[in-house]
Amino acid sequence: MTELPLGQRFSLLTDLYQLTMAACYFDQGMTEEATFSLFIRKYPPNRGYFVAAGLEEALRYLETLRFSPEDLAYLESTGLFSAKFLSYLEGVRFTGEVFALPEGSIFFKNEPVLEVSAPIIEAQLAETFIINAVSLQTLIASKAARSCHAAQGRPLIDFSLRRTQGTDAGLKVARASYLAGFQGTSNVLAGRLYGLPIFGTMAHSYITSFPREIEAFRVFARLFPGITTLLIDTYDNLQGARKAAEVGKEMEARGERLQYVRLDSGDIAAISKEVRKILDDSGLDYVRILASGGFDEFKIAQVLAAGGPVDSFAVGTKMGVSADAPYFDCAYKLVKYAGRPVMKLSTGKVTLVDQKQIYRRYAPDGQMLRDTIALRGEAAPAGAPLLEKFMAGGRVTRKLPTLPESREFFHSQFALLPESYKALGEPAQFPVDLSPGLQDLQSRVEQETKQRELGES
Amino acid sequence: MTELPLGQRFSLLTDLYQLTMAACYFDQGMTEEATFSLFIRKYPPNRGYFVAAGLEEALRYLETLRFSPEDLAYLESTGLFSAKFLSYLEGVRFTGEVFALPEGSIFFKNEPVLEVSAPIIEAQLAETFIINAVSLQTLIASKAARSCHAAQGRPLIDFSLRRTQGTDAGLKVARASYLAGFQGTSNVLAGRLYGLPIFGTMAHSYITSFPREIEAFRVFARLFPGITTLLIDTYDNLQGARKAAEVGKEMEARGERLQYVRLDSGDIAAISKEVRKILDDSGLDYVRILASGGFDEFKIAQVLAAGGPVDSFAVGTKMGVSADAPYFDCAYKLVKYAGRPVMKLSTGKVTLVDQKQIYRRYAPDGQMLRDTIALRGEAAPAGAPLLEKFMAGGRVTRKLPTLPESREFFHSQFALLPESYKALGEPAQFPVDLSPGLQDLQSRVEQETKQRELGES
Repeated sequence: MTELPLGQRFSLLTDLYQLTMAACYFDQGMTEEATFSLFIRKYPPNRGYFVAAGLEEALRYLETLRFSPEDLAYLESTGLFSAKFLSYLEGVRFTGEVFALPEGSIFFKNEPVLEVSAPIIEAQLAETFIINAVSLQTLIASKAARSCHAAQGRPLIDFSLRRTQGTDAGLKVARASYLAGFQGTSNVLAGRLYGLPIFGTMAHSYITSFPREIEAFRVFARLFPGITTLLIDTYDNLQGARKAAEVGKEMEARGERLQYVRLDSGDIAAISKEVRKILDDSGLDYVRILASGGFDEFKIAQVLAAGGPVDSFAVGTKMGVSADAPYFDCAYKLVKYAGRPVMKLSTGKVTLVDQKQIYRRYAPDGQMLRDTIALRGEAAPAGAPLLEKFMAGGRVTRKLPTLPESREFFHSQFALLPESYKALGEPAQFPVDLSPGLQDLQSRVEQETKQRELGES
Repeated sequence: MTELPLGQRFSLLTDLYQLTMAACYFDQGMTEEATFSLFIRKYPPNRGYFVAAGLEEALRYLETLRFSPEDLAYLESTGLFSAKFLSYLEGVRFTGEVFALPEGSIFFKNEPVLEVSAPIIEAQLAETFIINAVSLQTLIASKAARSCHAAQGRPLIDFSLRRTQGTDAGLKVARASYLAGFQGTSNVLAGRLYGLPIFGTMAHSYITSFPREIEAFRVFARLFPGITTLLIDTYDNLQGARKAAEVGKEMEARGERLQYVRLDSGDIAAISKEVRKILDDSGLDYVRILASGGFDEFKIAQVLAAGGPVDSFAVGTKMGVSADAPYFDCAYKLVKYAGRPVMKLSTGKVTLVDQKQIYRRYAPDGQMLRDTIALRGEAAPAGAPLLEKFMAGGRVTRKLPTLPESREFFHSQFALLPESYKALGEPAQFPVDLSPGLQDLQSRVEQETKQRELGES
């Protein structure tokens, strides 16, 4: 794809108020450093952990952020901005620093997944894109991790592209679900762009375009003997299974092996048992069963609990839009400006002030035990620090992990999260506390703010 | 944005099986015309109608669909495809025809929103993108229409960009919500690309970056006197309102007028009444109240039912991801191949065969009464036909309406939909029947298919 770098394509993919606020900061000569903290305020139903994802995209955006002549001409046409400010925007680059959790990290509510420190205009302009990028991939990686957990090691494939919310989501869902353990995707462009393994079966339209189902099977098996998955529910699952077995035996005779049959409707647990028997009775015990159609972690768990001999699941729409929790309450809040820790007091929306670090402690058996959110500047409490510096002076300062490396990292971390927090329904809440330094500063800033703005003493 | 035309950027944004099935059709010399029908199988909770959107994007994609050298090189690298097939793909263009509902149309479950007829490979390749494009914008337009209905004429602004599922969704949500009656969006790039009105306020970070709230208000009002909306809940809504009133009076003294104050947290119905009183008591009865924070059609209705004097709502995340129904059960099914009407029999997923038309009847008072889905070829039943031809020979055959024209068309149609179908909770189901010709063909094809594939007579 011949395309501009992210930040150049998307410098205007921001809320208008980022630009009007920037114009105010510019007008007031407010150029000092601001720190914004990105975090998720609460768990949606059934969530007990989050999987960090989307950092690479956010960093690429920051590195290439600039306003094109077309962008500036559009802004000028709105009549809102002075020539002086537009000329400033023309030269603006992101020059700040980013601390973040590496992609694939497990984190919890209220923990900063990313902190940006930069001259306030730069940090403010990036808000919209950064929330959008990190929250989508984190949303999907968290949902995908649940699906993999439910599948107990069986491979999952992302089939969601047709129903993701747009094309960008289609690509990001493929990436984020792979990061969180999926085997691959049906999305060919995601295969090309991210190097993901791609998989496919066949559609009902393919079957119905042939005069007979078995002919459709035979043509596919002849052309793609190495990757043949036969969709058997177009007319009737069991008759379809018998025809698939027949084609499977023909493949055997040619020295080939039918890979999978695919079930896409009906009572999958019951049907898969009958289909398994038909295949086994034909000596095709090596042919595996792939199930699709409305799967998510709950339906996977249900089919497996009912003893359905399904070997692999194609997971589509419900993972691809995170159907039971289609957004996170994700915020990017100013926590410090010009050396001064700041907070808002709005009802139910208090945020943790200043630059922070997360420290994680582990039990003797290696399992995660408890996190502490602390000030970045205070004496480190017990535990391993989780936020790492990824960018300084507007440039990425370290080699970013490859996607397979991040996937590996996720696996290693997920293995350390105790089962009670992984429950599909009503998981336990992982204990996260605040360091004494953060608690003190938090209450001091709250007092000062109330006194200053509300006249309370 | 310097970009390739849609179809060239996204030719690989498809499921792998579209390409393997295409290779089978190619291998078998299956070049005859196929018709695929796009429809929504059922209503999600609380939906009683759909608003058609996304057609323009689908048509642009079809007009420009082609595989680039990079695409073909990637496909070759998978080792799945013959050189002959790849060389065919290099020259493939969409040459077919498209019937569709104009954007802004009201439609119901099982009604075709779009029908594509083309040589089967071309029509099959386009499946993934077309579902993705039409289902997202239709999803959002339908949700946005409900929000506007709940707001009873008060202007709504799209504030969802930070939480939409990706960047493409961010743009499409702005477009689709405008189509369905929103006043505009905070999304600057959508403003530039679609010519939408853009709006903005200020963030809590803006307020907290100043030593005092009132200074932040003053700076903004000085710089943007024509579009000033003051966010008053950073520390306390009522104290914020008093400071806003003070700044409003300062603006008055300069011959300017404060536009809005914005509430973003707490009990909006109760707070808006107190804020209204503060403004009125200061002689600022012309200053309007904008509310934001978790709004959708349900919360809008609630605040208005409680008598909250809110003049305008900023509607974000819940509309932007269609939170209570984040996907539609949208399908693109083969209904005819080589002159032969076809269907699958999969459990619970029967589709309507052949090329179709929708006819709509109206009551004497002009209100929508009943729809009939009929064969395109049969004698027209009573009512006005809804599907129109938009493309033939792979080219758009008519001037597409502008977005404001489609918005106007939506308004005119929505006014004709009786209130019972617009209910926010448990709407009535609009009556849709099948013509005698379609019923006959449907049962004949079902019988023939069962006999052929299942051996039933």
